[in-house]
Order: sequence, then structure tokens, then C-alpha cells
Amino acid sequence: MDMHKRINAAVARAVALGQTGKAPSQLSTALGYATTPGGARIRPTILMSVALACGDDRPELSDAAAAALELIHCASLVHDDLPCFDDADLRRGKPSVHRAYSEPLAVLTGDSLIVLAFEVLARAAPHAPDRAMQLVLTLARQTGMPNGICAGQGWESEARIDLSAYHQSKTGALFIAATQMGAVAAGQEAEPWHELGARIGEAFQVADDLRDALYDIETLGKPAGQDDLHGRPNAVASLGVDGAIRRLKDILSGAIASIPSCPGEAKLAEMVRLQAERLTPVVEPVQAKA
Amino acid sequence: MDMHKRINAAVARAVALGQTGKAPSQLSTALGYATTPGGARIRPTILMSVALACGDDRPELSDAAAAALELIHCASLVHDDLPCFDDADLRRGKPSVHRAYSEPLAVLTGDSLIVLAFEVLARAAPHAPDRAMQLVLTLARQTGMPNGICAGQGWESEARIDLSAYHQSKTGALFIAATQMGAVAAGQEAEPWHELGARIGEAFQVADDLRDALYDIETLGKPAGQDDLHGRPNAVASLGVDGAIRRLKDILSGAIASIPSCPGEAKLAEMVRLQAERLTPVVEPVQAKA
Repeated sequence: MDMHKRINAAVARAVALGQTGKAPSQLSTALGYATTPGGARIRPTILMSVALACGDDRPELSDAAAAALELIHCASLVHDDLPCFDDADLRRGKPSVHRAYSEPLAVLTGDSLIVLAFEVLARAAPHAPDRAMQLVLTLARQTGMPNGICAGQGWESEARIDLSAYHQSKTGALFIAATQMGAVAAGQEAEPWHELGARIGEAFQVADDLRDALYDIETLGKPAGQDDLHGRPNAVASLGVDGAIRRLKDILSGAIASIPSCPGEAKLAEMVRLQAERLTPVVEPVQAKA
Repeated sequence: MDMHKRINAAVARAVALGQTGKAPSQLSTALGYATTPGGARIRPTILMSVALACGDDRPELSDAAAAALELIHCASLVHDDLPCFDDADLRRGKPSVHRAYSEPLAVLTGDSLIVLAFEVLARAAPHAPDRAMQLVLTLARQTGMPNGICAGQGWESEARIDLSAYHQSKTGALFIAATQMGAVAAGQEAEPWHELGARIGEAFQVADDLRDALYDIETLGKPAGQDDLHGRPNAVASLGVDGAIRRLKDILSGAIASIPSCPGEAKLAEMVRLQAERLTPVVEPVQAKA
């Protein structure tokens, strides 16, 4: 099975756990709605690539880790789209969860997906209890407070933002989770994989700033120009478009250089290069703004 | 240390984990605000009572379990109070989190507390990895979909409510978590403790219906008459006040009878009796409505 199919199958199995038996039907279908279609599944793809590079000797655990990480990512999208945050009508080209269902169901969908992520890891524990517990800990740290994506969103409510902490937690955290969880699922230490995740996260942030500044709503499948609208800091504002693209390439070179020594190192470097191409906007965007 | 102090200390240590280092300050203080003052801490008290009745041979794990359960309970209160659910201005006699901070910070506070609950359990894993993983699984099941408190709230968005599933998940779930997690933390099987938790939950639901119907806002520290207002089903509407009080006493007798054989069985029965007295409304309420 190719990696994308393997990840989507793992996510589908995880979501199905929350939909069994006598469940309230709207919330049940909302869990599926919020997690499909999957898009690029970038974070679990990185996780799985690292796990494979490290030998992937407990594939059930890698599957669980990939699904758990993607569920947390989907939960964050559902909550970020809520009226009190981005108030986004669209996500991945279809109505956001609170528009398609309701605001209460969107809050509950996010909550349920967060809980399900940890349940999936605990269920995979018999395959390697120590690794599973380390996965719970790693995912929790990169999701909650004080350094996870919740903290990242929390910074947006502060009068004075610590920009480095903000970016590291808002965008970097789940990429750090991706590289560390991939390593842990395959029996390796988490710490040496921190830098790769942080650098990929940084690259993703710059790429997101570029996309937000350059592309229109049809290309993005979500409202464009959100950073500008909400007065959020971004790389294009500080470096210009060309400067931001150069910065993106530098970060990705550094990311490749930071890959720890492992059996599948060369293939992993190739994967990062592939993600880099995906991330870098084409020079003439479909429709530049202003 | 008495049990109440032990629980509050465990909750405070858990919350402090989310507030260390460079955290956004408002979200950081909101975590403390949402978890104090603690009130009766009924769920962790039941959990700790069961752990003690079973020997409490890993006190660090019982502490972690009690804190994790209370964090989930507090998270559910913060999200339930949101404008899109109960729109409650008050909680435990002070402004609800979204009133004191903001709606975005209330969503993030709930999310962060959920994540922190699982982190606390994972951090306690070295004291007994198998038990810790079982605690993660038990807590996740009673919190998320399809049977946890998220499912309970989810039922309120359905046109046709399965009343038994609704009550079991909305109120029963965290009491089932309390008895099961207490047993697991002390090295016992979870399953035999299901009935005690379910019965206590049922009693609590009837008691809550009674309080909601009988008491005024000053006594409750939150808006009264919410069930009536939101057209939610309740025991007072179907049985009347006297009938509901009789039902409450019957359920609690059944709860005591269901306690599995364990070293501290007699003391545990005494604790349930004590909770029963606390739950049963006085016959002449401070100020009856209508």
C-alpha cells in the first residue's frame, strides 16, 4: 500500500472508533466530515517517512501515531475556523464544520477528535507500551500548553506577542510532533528529531505566509488574505515576496542537513525536498492580489 | 494530608505543568482560573476513595488520575458555558471563563485542559506503565465519542434523543471514569467498578435536576432553571419533587450494594453515603421557584 493510502486508512479506522454503537448521529458524521477529504496529510506523511527511515518495526504503532497527529491537526482546523477565531466559512473547498453542522457541534467535534487522538495511541499500546506512552507525552506537549498549538493560538490574544514562541508553537509544534513521533514509533529517541521538525515547521510558516499573500480564495479553498485582515505578523510583510521565497529555500536546506543518521536517511532527505517543491509557490500565481 | 488537600495539590501541580516557561500569559492564568476554587471535587474524591479502598499502592498514579479527571471535568464546564451552548455568565459564583477572559481563550482553555489531562497520566507512567496506559484509555472512552461526555453534549443536537444513552454519557461517564480509574490506579480491573460509577452518575443527574428545579441563582452560583429554559428532559418533570427524592435514595442504596469486594469496602460505602447526603436537597429550599 502506498503511504498516502496507508495514512488515510489509519485515519479512517481511528475516526470509526468514535462512531461505533449508539452515538449521536450528527456529531458522529461531523467527525468524518472534519477529517475528509484529507488533502496532502503533510504532518502524518512526515511522521511516516521518519518512521520508515528508522525501520518502522512496529507498523501498528506508526499507523496509530500518524492517525493521532492528523486528528489533532483536524481538530485545530475545526476550532480555528469558529466564529470567535477566524470565522471561516470554507475549509478545504467545502463549508467549515460550524457552517455545515452548527457551532456547538464544531466545538464538540474538535474536542472529540483531540480525545480520540489519545485513545488511538493508548489502544496501540500492547504493540510497545513504552513507546506508546512516549507518543502520548510527545503529542500532548506539542498540542497543549505551554508550547503546543493551543499556546500558539493563545499568543494571538496577547497585547505583546513573543514572535519566536508564537511561530514555534502555532505552526512548528505539530511538525516537531511529526518527526519526533515517527522516530519514537520506530523505537528511536525523540530529541535528535526536534530540529528537523522545527525547521520544516518554519518553512511551512513562510510558505503559508506566501500563499496567504499571493493566492485567491479559489486556489486556497479557504479565505485568502487572512493575515493581513487580522493584522498578524508574516514573512512576506517583513521580507517581501522574493525575500520570503529565498528564506524558504534556506530553511529547507538546513532541514535536510539536520536529519539524524538513520538507515533511510537518503530517502528521507528526498521526501523533504519533495515537500519543499510542494511548499514553494509558483512564481506567477494564478491570480496575484493587488 | 486529608483527601481534599491531596486532590487540590494534585490539580495545582497538573495545572502548573501548563504554565511553565514562555507561555502566553492570559491563557496561562485562565487555566488556573478555570480550575479554582475547586468546589467539592466530587469526581476525584470518588476516584481517590476507590483507590484507597483498593490499597492505593501507587499514590503518584492515583494523584495523576484524580488530577486528570478533574481537568477534564473543568474543561467540560468551560466549553458548556460558551455562548453557543448554555451561554452562562456565572460558574462557581464567579464570571465564566469566556466572560472573564474571552470566547477564544475559553475555547483554548478547554482544549488545553483536555490535553493536559492526558499529559499528566503519561508523565506518571514510569510508576506503572501498564496502569497509566489503561488510565489514558479509560479516561478517553468516558470523555470522547461515542460514549463519553462529548457524546452526551452531542445528543442535545439530535432531533430524537436516546434518553438512556444521553444521561449515561452526559453525566454518568465521568463518574464511571472516577470509579474505574481509582481501581486501575491501584492495580485492579476496571470492569467490576463500572456499575458503582454508573449508579452514582444517575444519582447525581437526579440531584442536579432537583437543584435546578428548586434553587435560585445565589445558592447555585450559576443560572438556575436552565433545564426548563432549554427544554431538556429531567427527573423532576417526570416524577415530581418527592418522587425524584425517593428515586435518588433508591439509586444510592443500589450504588452501595454494587461496591465490589475490596479491603476498604466499608469505608467506601460510608463515603457514598456521605455524598448521598450532600446530593439530597433539603426539603425546604432557600427559595423555591414559583
